[in-house]
Amino acid sequence: MVSCGIVGATGYTGAELMRILARHPDVELRCATSRSEAGREAADLFPNLRGVVDLTLTPPRVADLAECDVVFFATPNGTAMRQAPALLDRGVKVIDLAADFRLKDPNLWMQWYGMEHACPDRLETAVYGLPELNREAIRTASLVANPGCYPTATILGLAPLLKANAIDPARIIADGKSGVSGAGRGANVATLAAECSESFKAYGASGHRHWPEMMQTLSEITGQRPGLTFVPHLVPMIRGINITLYCQFTTADKPLQALYEEAYEDEPFVDVMPPGSHPETRSCKGSNMCRIALHQSPGTDILVVLSVIDNLVKGAAGQAVQNMNLMMGLSETAGLDRVALLP
Amino acid sequence: MVSCGIVGATGYTGAELMRILARHPDVELRCATSRSEAGREAADLFPNLRGVVDLTLTPPRVADLAECDVVFFATPNGTAMRQAPALLDRGVKVIDLAADFRLKDPNLWMQWYGMEHACPDRLETAVYGLPELNREAIRTASLVANPGCYPTATILGLAPLLKANAIDPARIIADGKSGVSGAGRGANVATLAAECSESFKAYGASGHRHWPEMMQTLSEITGQRPGLTFVPHLVPMIRGINITLYCQFTTADKPLQALYEEAYEDEPFVDVMPPGSHPETRSCKGSNMCRIALHQSPGTDILVVLSVIDNLVKGAAGQAVQNMNLMMGLSETAGLDRVALLP
Amino acid sequence: MVSCGIVGATGYTGAELMRILARHPDVELRCATSRSEAGREAADLFPNLRGVVDLTLTPPRVADLAECDVVFFATPNGTAMRQAPALLDRGVKVIDLAADFRLKDPNLWMQWYGMEHACPDRLETAVYGLPELNREAIRTASLVANPGCYPTATILGLAPLLKANAIDPARIIADGKSGVSGAGRGANVATLAAECSESFKAYGASGHRHWPEMMQTLSEITGQRPGLTFVPHLVPMIRGINITLYCQFTTADKPLQALYEEAYEDEPFVDVMPPGSHPETRSCKGSNMCRIALHQSPGTDILVVLSVIDNLVKGAAGQAVQNMNLMMGLSETAGLDRVALLP
Amino acid sequence: MVSCGIVGATGYTGAELMRILARHPDVELRCATSRSEAGREAADLFPNLRGVVDLTLTPPRVADLAECDVVFFATPNGTAMRQAPALLDRGVKVIDLAADFRLKDPNLWMQWYGMEHACPDRLETAVYGLPELNREAIRTASLVANPGCYPTATILGLAPLLKANAIDPARIIADGKSGVSGAGRGANVATLAAECSESFKAYGASGHRHWPEMMQTLSEITGQRPGLTFVPHLVPMIRGINITLYCQFTTADKPLQALYEEAYEDEPFVDVMPPGSHPETRSCKGSNMCRIALHQSPGTDILVVLSVIDNLVKGAAGQAVQNMNLMMGLSETAGLDRVALLP
Repeated sequence: MVSCGIVGATGYTGAELMRILARHPDVELRCATSRSEAGREAADLFPNLRGVVDLTLTPPRVADLAECDVVFFATPNGTAMRQAPALLDRGVKVIDLAADFRLKDPNLWMQWYGMEHACPDRLETAVYGLPELNREAIRTASLVANPGCYPTATILGLAPLLKANAIDPARIIADGKSGVSGAGRGANVATLAAECSESFKAYGASGHRHWPEMMQTLSEITGQRPGLTFVPHLVPMIRGINITLYCQFTTADKPLQALYEEAYEDEPFVDVMPPGSHPETRSCKGSNMCRIALHQSPGTDILVVLSVIDNLVKGAAGQAVQNMNLMMGLSETAGLDRVALLP
Repeated sequence: MVSCGIVGATGYTGAELMRILARHPDVELRCATSRSEAGREAADLFPNLRGVVDLTLTPPRVADLAECDVVFFATPNGTAMRQAPALLDRGVKVIDLAADFRLKDPNLWMQWYGMEHACPDRLETAVYGLPELNREAIRTASLVANPGCYPTATILGLAPLLKANAIDPARIIADGKSGVSGAGRGANVATLAAECSESFKAYGASGHRHWPEMMQTLSEITGQRPGLTFVPHLVPMIRGINITLYCQFTTADKPLQALYEEAYEDEPFVDVMPPGSHPETRSCKGSNMCRIALHQSPGTDILVVLSVIDNLVKGAAGQAVQNMNLMMGLSETAGLDRVALLP
Repeated sequence: MVSCGIVGATGYTGAELMRILARHPDVELRCATSRSEAGREAADLFPNLRGVVDLTLTPPRVADLAECDVVFFATPNGTAMRQAPALLDRGVKVIDLAADFRLKDPNLWMQWYGMEHACPDRLETAVYGLPELNREAIRTASLVANPGCYPTATILGLAPLLKANAIDPARIIADGKSGVSGAGRGANVATLAAECSESFKAYGASGHRHWPEMMQTLSEITGQRPGLTFVPHLVPMIRGINITLYCQFTTADKPLQALYEEAYEDEPFVDVMPPGSHPETRSCKGSNMCRIALHQSPGTDILVVLSVIDNLVKGAAGQAVQNMNLMMGLSETAGLDRVALLP
Repeated sequence: MVSCGIVGATGYTGAELMRILARHPDVELRCATSRSEAGREAADLFPNLRGVVDLTLTPPRVADLAECDVVFFATPNGTAMRQAPALLDRGVKVIDLAADFRLKDPNLWMQWYGMEHACPDRLETAVYGLPELNREAIRTASLVANPGCYPTATILGLAPLLKANAIDPARIIADGKSGVSGAGRGANVATLAAECSESFKAYGASGHRHWPEMMQTLSEITGQRPGLTFVPHLVPMIRGINITLYCQFTTADKPLQALYEEAYEDEPFVDVMPPGSHPETRSCKGSNMCRIALHQSPGTDILVVLSVIDNLVKGAAGQAVQNMNLMMGLSETAGLDRVALLP
């Protein structure tokens, strides 16, 4: 059994990790920490875990966490970069669900996250945990930077086109839509039900932190700096991300549908839907799947790619468990066989 | 008092017309028709109208409708083109909230709506009822084609840029999001609450009927055929449309914020928000306002325009009443002073 | 024109007062105060008010407020009891939308609200602002205690039965359901959209502050202390209250439907629906109506009364304006003719 | 492996059966039938099943179904009573998720369901499939009548009190609230998202089909005909039932909290929450749990019991699988270990 710890178990990604790990056949959930809620039962905060997770939340202590094989950081940005090195030095594998290890350039981190990076030397060894791109590197990684939710859906939607040089990388538009759980479990007027139900809006239209993350990964794929416009929007639903990608088609050796089907034919968590499909976010609700469909816009050379995930699963906790499975030599799909809840 | 009739009063646009006209200071709502519900009280179908609208629904009869000054068609596509001519010939002014008179080219109508046009000779005289573009023509029109909901928000968002030649008209992307009332009040599995709540999806990504309508109007503005990609999405909320426009900036004589503020400074129903704003659809809920904001995407020459309306008001019934006010020489804002409901 | 002030304009009842008063034909909204947001435009907080309310929020100052004819307190419990006396002493009429002046017994206030009452001598002169019960007293009142949202719907639903001695007052059950706007606009994890959407729960089942308020008014109606069980529930919607009342029928002189219709026949804001109806909260959304329907439970002597309102309108700001209209000698319905928004 | 068939796989209970059975370790899902959708892939209708359920829907044919060990009827009322006998006669075990075999009295069936019963002789042998009451009888049953969703939550909430004679059985009130999936997947104006979102209402207040079902089971528990008032309400959410029970306390040998904890201490799917708790429906979303909490109403002898389930799981498909597990000698919890999805 793999022994796991969660730092920051009171947010939504922490809760989702507990939900998944509690039913993972090869995992023992050893500890879950919270500064603010230490001493409370995890199941008191998240009543779905009653009878399932029997853990008292503890303050984060290196000594306790160091006894785990793997520690997940489900903490706000800026925490893991301070606490992970001590664990890594003791041989614990670390998966950070926040942004601390996603950007390779510490100056870019400073620019977008407004704080100096606490361990820039670790950035090189951190592996960007998108298994569909970096599976082999993840297998041997000690430190995995779990991708952001928007980047996961965006990159999975774009990668086959970019790898095949089928679109102009200088002209990519990603229109993102996310459910409100993406905003986290912090008390906040803007995400009150009375504020964001029955409404829809863009946010971060002049710049969002997931943009440099996408830029970095798209650059790695194409070998050049792409032109990417990204605007996120808030959807009045709890879970789900939909990315609508607009790409300028150039040329292709094969039908694009075939290109996608081949690219993902061995992927357990990417589903290329039949031509003409419109994936619904609910088809992934609670599951680790990403579903993708392609469309040709009439009268133009614009290719439309639709990509949906559950932001808390493939966009966070599920992908983190997928990464853990790879890092620990387990079956990649272990603990991740849940079928999406529909309706 | 202007005497009004509504053909097809049992759909959402019909109900919204009744809600607005019931409190219009210069209007008498004379008749409301429904084939399927004739004989029932309007207020039995729409309990918000109890004590407000005291009308028994009647079958649509030319003799009754001909006694009105204005008749609104809130019917499915293909109805008004059959029934409006008889009314027009008797001097009744007609406002069609469906698509029958929007496209000038009957072949295009046939192509997108799958039926031959019943009165192609009327298409020339029909005025596209977007007051911000066609106010003077509307004042003297007998037949107004009330714009579609997506086109209204899209065109109001694009017009200042196109008129100023500030963007490349060959590269416009309009990512649309609509609440479910846009799908109408017909019984339909896909729009059941259990199907479309807590989910988000694109639809019509390979072609939507509002695309040729937008193309026609954008062509009129620019004098050339633009390149437009339009993908609509379904949002789990009742009312509201958000259009996110991605335009390739070329050049401008003045700051774009000023361009918009000047373009709309005298418009009672277009609100250009301060720089950096993200309009929320709820800020227009139940009101006839369109709110617009501008953003510059970082690292690219893409200009992002956000445009929101209530699809049933500025996107349908409210705009129809605005058109009626113009056609009948009333104050343009009469009956349309309601403040949006928030929260 | 009646000059009005609002203390505490940044909560939902304050915002709703601004929405209503902005379109009231006989009112000038003179000032709106907020300690935390002083200096900001009201329309920046509530974008539906852009172009409608042109007021900068100010700190609450007696000198400013004393120039108003009427001041509304839309503040947390415990504020009005401290600030209202100074205004009353200067001849300003006060309407408190919080609970400060609802309970006649200061000990009961202390017991349920956990603080000593700051002006117990004013409690006697305060009039409980339910026009359907206390219209004449409200007309001459200087200080009105605007009823709670649950008590409004409950009392309007029960009053005809109690006045006619048609039910056993010792056995009343009120099962209440409220939308989330009832919880206010404060940042709070429990009312985040991700927490309370797609879920339903009871709260306060062992005792809620609206219970003593209901007990007091029901006692006044019946002349004896009733037996009342009240359990509130949280509904995943923004606006609306539904009260389901279970009463043990005793005897009646006339059919109960007639009893209700006669009781409310002259009331502008109470709608007794036809037998067999099930009122929907949306039929009151944004309007000042209360809709009521009666049912007989099969196989028992239990009478079921259904009563719905919009908690922010008839349950708060609308009723406050109705009270103001009475206090200032205006038409009781002035500014309150809005039709509910449906769908 | 137990071989299973589903008749009527295109409704929500059928889809939920497929979701659960697809991951049941001891089950092979052999066939799924639909008259209207025969020939389509199950996963085309329910995209969450893509890659999970590889079944083409077939017309219901006795020959196919007779090869199953167990057949679930997830059909409208009145179907199973016509088709089940042929399967039972061939030794197939049948679990009916509709109402056909719930009422023991065929006259009562006729009265509430408006059709003559097709096989009244089977009613005696049918076992009411509430394992917490009838576990041993279910183990040996050939025909199980799966309980209704409201009755499941209501009876589990009431049984300990009734068995202990702690309440007056003549005065029970059950106020029920259900998500919209309870209304089924049929096209219906009343359950369109634009109709039932953002609203709340009672329905069936003068009589609902689950009332006689509850009456029958409560009578069996108490040995007398109880007095029960039941009013259901529609909640704007997809899944979940909350029953709020109001009971007149008489006397008890032990604290009621202890009574409940003992009654359910060995039950895998009933969770008695700590005193003062308010169970949320979301704590059961997607899981087979029923959560219960007790409250004493202040100032009265009324005991309040709160009981929540997921209407599609413990209220339908999950309970059906629990029954199948018992009937087939499998572990009672097999395939039912999913943790509720929260948020």
